[in-house]
Amino acid sequence: MDILRGERLKGLAPEAINFISSISHDEPLIKPVIMINQAHMIMLIEYGLVKREYGIECLKALESIPLDLKLDPKLEDVHMNIESLVIKKLGEEIGGQLNLGKSRNDQVATAIRMVLRDYILDIISNLIKLCKTLIQRCEEHLETIMPGYTHLQHAQPVTLAHHLLAYCEALLRDGYRLRDSYKRINLSPMGAAALATTGLNIDRNLVASLLGFDGLIRNSIDAVSSRDFAVEVISNLSLLMMNLSRLAEELILWSTYEFGIVEIPDEYASTSSIMPQKKNAVVAEMIRSKTSIIYGDLIASLSILKSLPYSYNLDLQDLTPRIWNACNIALTSLMVMDGMMKGVKFNVNRLKDLIKNDMLLATDLADYLTQKFGISFRIAHRIIGALVRRAIENGKTLSEVVGDLSKFIEEITGLKVNVPINELKDVLNVEKAVEIRKVIGGPSSFEVIKMMDYYKSEINGLENWVLECKSKLERSFTLLHNKIALLRGVGS
Amino acid sequence: MDILRGERLKGLAPEAINFISSISHDEPLIKPVIMINQAHMIMLIEYGLVKREYGIECLKALESIPLDLKLDPKLEDVHMNIESLVIKKLGEEIGGQLNLGKSRNDQVATAIRMVLRDYILDIISNLIKLCKTLIQRCEEHLETIMPGYTHLQHAQPVTLAHHLLAYCEALLRDGYRLRDSYKRINLSPMGAAALATTGLNIDRNLVASLLGFDGLIRNSIDAVSSRDFAVEVISNLSLLMMNLSRLAEELILWSTYEFGIVEIPDEYASTSSIMPQKKNAVVAEMIRSKTSIIYGDLIASLSILKSLPYSYNLDLQDLTPRIWNACNIALTSLMVMDGMMKGVKFNVNRLKDLIKNDMLLATDLADYLTQKFGISFRIAHRIIGALVRRAIENGKTLSEVVGDLSKFIEEITGLKVNVPINELKDVLNVEKAVEIRKVIGGPSSFEVIKMMDYYKSEINGLENWVLECKSKLERSFTLLHNKIALLRGVGS
Amino acid sequence: MDILRGERLKGLAPEAINFISSISHDEPLIKPVIMINQAHMIMLIEYGLVKREYGIECLKALESIPLDLKLDPKLEDVHMNIESLVIKKLGEEIGGQLNLGKSRNDQVATAIRMVLRDYILDIISNLIKLCKTLIQRCEEHLETIMPGYTHLQHAQPVTLAHHLLAYCEALLRDGYRLRDSYKRINLSPMGAAALATTGLNIDRNLVASLLGFDGLIRNSIDAVSSRDFAVEVISNLSLLMMNLSRLAEELILWSTYEFGIVEIPDEYASTSSIMPQKKNAVVAEMIRSKTSIIYGDLIASLSILKSLPYSYNLDLQDLTPRIWNACNIALTSLMVMDGMMKGVKFNVNRLKDLIKNDMLLATDLADYLTQKFGISFRIAHRIIGALVRRAIENGKTLSEVVGDLSKFIEEITGLKVNVPINELKDVLNVEKAVEIRKVIGGPSSFEVIKMMDYYKSEINGLENWVLECKSKLERSFTLLHNKIALLRGVGS
Amino acid sequence: MDILRGERLKGLAPEAINFISSISHDEPLIKPVIMINQAHMIMLIEYGLVKREYGIECLKALESIPLDLKLDPKLEDVHMNIESLVIKKLGEEIGGQLNLGKSRNDQVATAIRMVLRDYILDIISNLIKLCKTLIQRCEEHLETIMPGYTHLQHAQPVTLAHHLLAYCEALLRDGYRLRDSYKRINLSPMGAAALATTGLNIDRNLVASLLGFDGLIRNSIDAVSSRDFAVEVISNLSLLMMNLSRLAEELILWSTYEFGIVEIPDEYASTSSIMPQKKNAVVAEMIRSKTSIIYGDLIASLSILKSLPYSYNLDLQDLTPRIWNACNIALTSLMVMDGMMKGVKFNVNRLKDLIKNDMLLATDLADYLTQKFGISFRIAHRIIGALVRRAIENGKTLSEVVGDLSKFIEEITGLKVNVPINELKDVLNVEKAVEIRKVIGGPSSFEVIKMMDYYKSEINGLENWVLECKSKLERSFTLLHNKIALLRGVGS
Repeated sequence: MDILRGERLKGLAPEAINFISSISHDEPLIKPVIMINQAHMIMLIEYGLVKREYGIECLKALESIPLDLKLDPKLEDVHMNIESLVIKKLGEEIGGQLNLGKSRNDQVATAIRMVLRDYILDIISNLIKLCKTLIQRCEEHLETIMPGYTHLQHAQPVTLAHHLLAYCEALLRDGYRLRDSYKRINLSPMGAAALATTGLNIDRNLVASLLGFDGLIRNSIDAVSSRDFAVEVISNLSLLMMNLSRLAEELILWSTYEFGIVEIPDEYASTSSIMPQKKNAVVAEMIRSKTSIIYGDLIASLSILKSLPYSYNLDLQDLTPRIWNACNIALTSLMVMDGMMKGVKFNVNRLKDLIKNDMLLATDLADYLTQKFGISFRIAHRIIGALVRRAIENGKTLSEVVGDLSKFIEEITGLKVNVPINELKDVLNVEKAVEIRKVIGGPSSFEVIKMMDYYKSEINGLENWVLECKSKLERSFTLLHNKIALLRGVGS
Repeated sequence: MDILRGERLKGLAPEAINFISSISHDEPLIKPVIMINQAHMIMLIEYGLVKREYGIECLKALESIPLDLKLDPKLEDVHMNIESLVIKKLGEEIGGQLNLGKSRNDQVATAIRMVLRDYILDIISNLIKLCKTLIQRCEEHLETIMPGYTHLQHAQPVTLAHHLLAYCEALLRDGYRLRDSYKRINLSPMGAAALATTGLNIDRNLVASLLGFDGLIRNSIDAVSSRDFAVEVISNLSLLMMNLSRLAEELILWSTYEFGIVEIPDEYASTSSIMPQKKNAVVAEMIRSKTSIIYGDLIASLSILKSLPYSYNLDLQDLTPRIWNACNIALTSLMVMDGMMKGVKFNVNRLKDLIKNDMLLATDLADYLTQKFGISFRIAHRIIGALVRRAIENGKTLSEVVGDLSKFIEEITGLKVNVPINELKDVLNVEKAVEIRKVIGGPSSFEVIKMMDYYKSEINGLENWVLECKSKLERSFTLLHNKIALLRGVGS
Repeated sequence: MDILRGERLKGLAPEAINFISSISHDEPLIKPVIMINQAHMIMLIEYGLVKREYGIECLKALESIPLDLKLDPKLEDVHMNIESLVIKKLGEEIGGQLNLGKSRNDQVATAIRMVLRDYILDIISNLIKLCKTLIQRCEEHLETIMPGYTHLQHAQPVTLAHHLLAYCEALLRDGYRLRDSYKRINLSPMGAAALATTGLNIDRNLVASLLGFDGLIRNSIDAVSSRDFAVEVISNLSLLMMNLSRLAEELILWSTYEFGIVEIPDEYASTSSIMPQKKNAVVAEMIRSKTSIIYGDLIASLSILKSLPYSYNLDLQDLTPRIWNACNIALTSLMVMDGMMKGVKFNVNRLKDLIKNDMLLATDLADYLTQKFGISFRIAHRIIGALVRRAIENGKTLSEVVGDLSKFIEEITGLKVNVPINELKDVLNVEKAVEIRKVIGGPSSFEVIKMMDYYKSEINGLENWVLECKSKLERSFTLLHNKIALLRGVGS
Repeated sequence: MDILRGERLKGLAPEAINFISSISHDEPLIKPVIMINQAHMIMLIEYGLVKREYGIECLKALESIPLDLKLDPKLEDVHMNIESLVIKKLGEEIGGQLNLGKSRNDQVATAIRMVLRDYILDIISNLIKLCKTLIQRCEEHLETIMPGYTHLQHAQPVTLAHHLLAYCEALLRDGYRLRDSYKRINLSPMGAAALATTGLNIDRNLVASLLGFDGLIRNSIDAVSSRDFAVEVISNLSLLMMNLSRLAEELILWSTYEFGIVEIPDEYASTSSIMPQKKNAVVAEMIRSKTSIIYGDLIASLSILKSLPYSYNLDLQDLTPRIWNACNIALTSLMVMDGMMKGVKFNVNRLKDLIKNDMLLATDLADYLTQKFGISFRIAHRIIGALVRRAIENGKTLSEVVGDLSKFIEEITGLKVNVPINELKDVLNVEKAVEIRKVIGGPSSFEVIKMMDYYKSEINGLENWVLECKSKLERSFTLLHNKIALLRGVGS
């Protein structure tokens, strides 16, 4: 029997059943919905709102529900599935107590938050792993010089470590964004009921604390109407994926025949069904496309919420699978990226070849002129620009034309100076050029080591925070289960 | 054994297997991939590119594959699953012929097009059904006057039929957009192979015609790189859903206690888990949210394709489930909307109440002044504006204050005129106001009937086009199966 | 002369000039770019990297630039405009010093952050204003009962104050999100130069502190490549606008003829060019559409960043106007919403009419049965469902059919009970129904007052934070200007 | 005086004026709004709905309005600006006739369509130019062999002409999509008035034909409520930009130091403010970012329309600038891409180097085995896979290890065969490998020439269609102006 429509409405049209059912994405909610029912029932018992023995029967029935329960779409959603199961077991007189003083509206908002906070902690943990892997790879390549790119053109020399640490700093911001979101997620809507709380004397704080929440979503209308906490997470994960997509893009570019900077580990590549020579960076490609997918989830979620009058509307139901999808994308992308970064081979010889393109040092040459001859930077820029043009037109390197520098200086400034060739050699020495960049955040190995230490300490702080959150949740769950055990003991 | 990676690459990392597999959304491709393999093999046999008896064995093996085949994610995709199955059955010497002169790249593009063209025809058919239902409901309400809204405020009187026909015209545009897209979908990429065709003497036109295509995607690089044909469809379906979402919104508004214009049929509504009095327009709400979902699919698809270098990249794989999802959303939404529109009850009495708000006729009053006294429209607008303000401030209807009209005219224009009260009664008669709007596309029943006839004939044309497309496809498939039967007969 | 392309490249194609210029949206950057040049030059002087007298000339020239400078698109961007101006004034020998040890890449990232942090503080201040206005309106309507809606259907009674406070809680979350973002915005990229810092001995911390930053973006590649700080803000503003759009939607609905709950103040409405009776909630409509616009800005920004290889690419330039647009939308929307909410009239009589629909109390009736007779909630829900159906079928209110309750109880449960009619009257008293909802976050006036106090204290905290940020910025700027004055004094 | 609010509403709040004004993006509408007023007035005169002499005065006043009119935001929009101007000139008695039987609602929808159809024709013309340029560049490079890429890895040899023609085919689809949209754009909403037509005896067909429309949007509610015609165009332009972004991406990649395949013409590149050696493909980068911008415009437009109840709402106003922006982006991007493609230098020597990587011919080698020894393709794929692995592990080319082929065949199949080395040389000859790919759409020069001819003829057809549309529009405008002249002559 349909315990809801019962005496009120005729049956749903067959083609509408799946259309409005949330069953296909309710599976992650099974466990939290059971726990919410347990915490709520404990509260009802403790406050004398249900008969103690009835309540205890309900707690027993809830505990016996398997977490891999197969949900029935005809029962609309996870809430009605679980209530129906308890009623089937205990009869409507006892099992029908379950929904007293609560509603699907507050329950689903609460359950989503419970799943989401676990995802957040899990995602941050995996983000930390990736950061550690990046730092580990940096340690191998403190002195591996590579061309730094702007506009994908050789710009100035940096080191591989310096480059990879840029991702580390970006990923840490992603971690902090998620940590900030956690504060807004871990608040309990329970007790809001349909939208207006209830006339019964329930205790919202007790339920919240048994479920591990740090506080309440206070206003009951807001509690059932809002999903901004979830969209905030999808948005933060979009940014995280965006950052990963940039790293993935670089892996794809760098593994081309033309760049030849990295070799993707076999375990993260595929070949072709027709061209046996192919080794394709398919995992990196999928990180790139998953980024687009999460963008789609973000815009779908925002679009769902736009102009939605208060309070609960079923539209919110279609937002939930976006959350799961976004979390799964981020989580698995971090995992495969970590595995890939662990195994990727950097082709140090190719990098050595690439930095022979000493155009990378044109800025250093200009800086030199400013310091040596007091020429202003803009004029120096122009002199070196002319020198570069000459070199390119003649297919030469900077080192090969640098002998003409005095001549160019004179042509452009009128200044007659004698540029000492041995000093120029030093300026055009790429190793030195890297080492003199000792500014905070720069590529010199000294500075990169300091950066790594800084990031390690940040990572450490984030890691501790995750551990604290987890242990706080566990303490609450222990309390919940102790209360159940105690009641069952008393009840039996 | 992994027939692809074989001697070339080590096995995939476990966490990468699902990450790069398309299996979870390849199920719709099973049938077309089998057909493509069949058509391609027939061509290879006819052109002597494979041994006749080997080819025939392959055709037999292909025919024996069940359409509800369970796909194995370890084999990456539907293509390798089917090839593996044939090889398992026939051995690699015979079964290994299957992929000669083709590639997953052209095959998947072709298969997607085959599924998509069926969806298009199916969606248009359901769109036609909904248009017919709308027209049917119009026929009942040719003379049911209602307030026409702008800015959700009462504007001018229209009829329910007139209003519903607006959706009919919009939906027809959606139908035409899809029909236009069909031209760009029903072209065959087969023969492009990986990207560069093949050195073998294959016949692209033969394969195309056996598979029901109207022509070829000519350039082989374009053939494997492009998905704009699919995004075009997702975009057209987004517009279709957008139109449905507007109708859904009106159903939601109109079924509120406050509007009270419609009653949603029980079969398309739900009640509350806590409030037994509730009857919620949940199906309409889901059409609204599904519109957001399809927007997400659209933007995800566009984002995937942006800046993707030619030719095939695995990113394209993540676009495919967006297509299926968009098509399913549109198809089911049309179905439930059709069911809902068939059953929705229009509360004619409530509409009668609403049009008692004779502010709806303010424009008619202004028009009357222009025609009667040669007052310019802008001045007339101002006069009636003042009259309206007076009415509102005194909580009266227009009819109740219309006696002061002469006074207002004089105040504003200086003109002394005598407005005949009996003529004003006519102007403020809402039935007459509707009937005089005989302009093409207007609400008078005469014009609405003409509109309905026009739409019926348009619908008819669209319906015939669908039938022709379907029969053309069937003729091709008959040819394909006859060729197989003939070869098997000869071969056995 | 083109000081950049100079000797290096031929002139831009005419149609490319505007295509790549950022001038059209660089206006907000003029002031911060001047300040950055000042802070950087002070640092160069203090560290002896430029001649003191040259540096002082540059500082003077920078100070003389008008903040309403008209930018020239041929000079590509604000950076080159300002440098050109200084060079024009001082000659290339002196003015050409300006860009020593910095680049447009770090400069633009820094300037954007400076504008953005001001916007954040301004937006939060306006958000606070709106929250205060909402609370003020709540104080007038602590006891104005209205139907609470779910699925836009009457659900349970709440008060107008309770309803409006839901927006207050949501807006506070928006405020906190922006406050969290501020931490990631107010970090200085200066010193990263093009991407690799510089070989010169510059002091990033000094520049940062003169410009009011709380710290550095450490890694120099990250410093010039990243815009996630900005997209984070656009995303947070999207959520803010989403929340405003829901309030706007309710104002639109509530101001319809049918709902009749509010009257929009004239100052925030418009009439029609043709229908003089119209009063349209156009400001609310525009808040709704602006929400869509900001969504577009968000997705455009995310799409720009996806798969962009490190470090700087010109694509980033197209992100900047999205930031300005998003900030302006949020800021002005908060302002007009505040004005509108201040002036909106709530039609208390209409609300009194609406709550006569005592279906709102069906849940209370069910709750009563559970407490009175120990009937389980699910059975009680069913009993009342049947009662409701009866009432609707006969066009009656709940109060009118409640006499049959005993009969229904017996029919469904077999239980023979006598329901005391006088108790039912109490249950069906909407004022009492509101007052018994004393649960935290519920509608009873007692609880609403507590909520208001809570929000006021939160608002207060946020307000103080804004003031502290502003005063910290001002202290830095004072230092900057003192240093300039000191140098000018010494130099002249 | 505010001719609209006049007697009806108090003045707008100052901060609301700009918030609801469309003035900032109404400039393109000035000309069409004037023309619509003219056509409508001619109709009113011809049907005797306004006094002939009054009407003629209006026509004169309309003609005297400068097209570069500066619009006043206080007058809300272009419509009220123009009407006010006429009234200012002629007084309200005469000028106030202008809006009789029409409304801003139908007028704006009509004007947008008029601007949009011009954009469509202009964009298609520029798309044709780019296609012609591409074909021209193909003619130079019919035999320039390059590596064809899949997954950005060397796949099989193609020619530069073959590759560029892929874009030509894609762009043609973009052209056809726009042509299809034109049918749905060039229909007149005029006469729908606010939403319900009018009681006056107006002639919609006459107005439509004077304005160059091919027909009517029939249903008057649809006529003012719909913008799907515009979003359809934004969506088609999004696909066009998507295609351009892929070409832009290839130009960026190909112009890197590592690829070195193209040199961007100076006129479409920029240098760095700090690194004088830089030559950045900034125009291509901006095409890439503009693609993201247009995606944002698309999603904003779709989001605006979602769930918008009928008929006109001011939200629609915010959609209009998205249309202009999308059209301008597409138009200018086509122009700069055309200029860039005209001037780009292909580095033929670099391509010769790249194709020395004879892994490109692995598939040919596998195909050879199938045809020579009847080995199945899948086995051949495996044999060559092993050979490739051997080559890579030893840092050799395919040619260098091909001597071991017989051995590999035996190892894997047990088959003892003797592979004739001279035949292998032929198979591994990249020129021959290209020329044998004579399949339709393949890279052999013979086939590429056929493709070019095909595209030329398609381009020709599209070009003729544009010309026909333009001449049809011109004929209508001539008629319109003749009518005005005739009336003025008679009237004066």
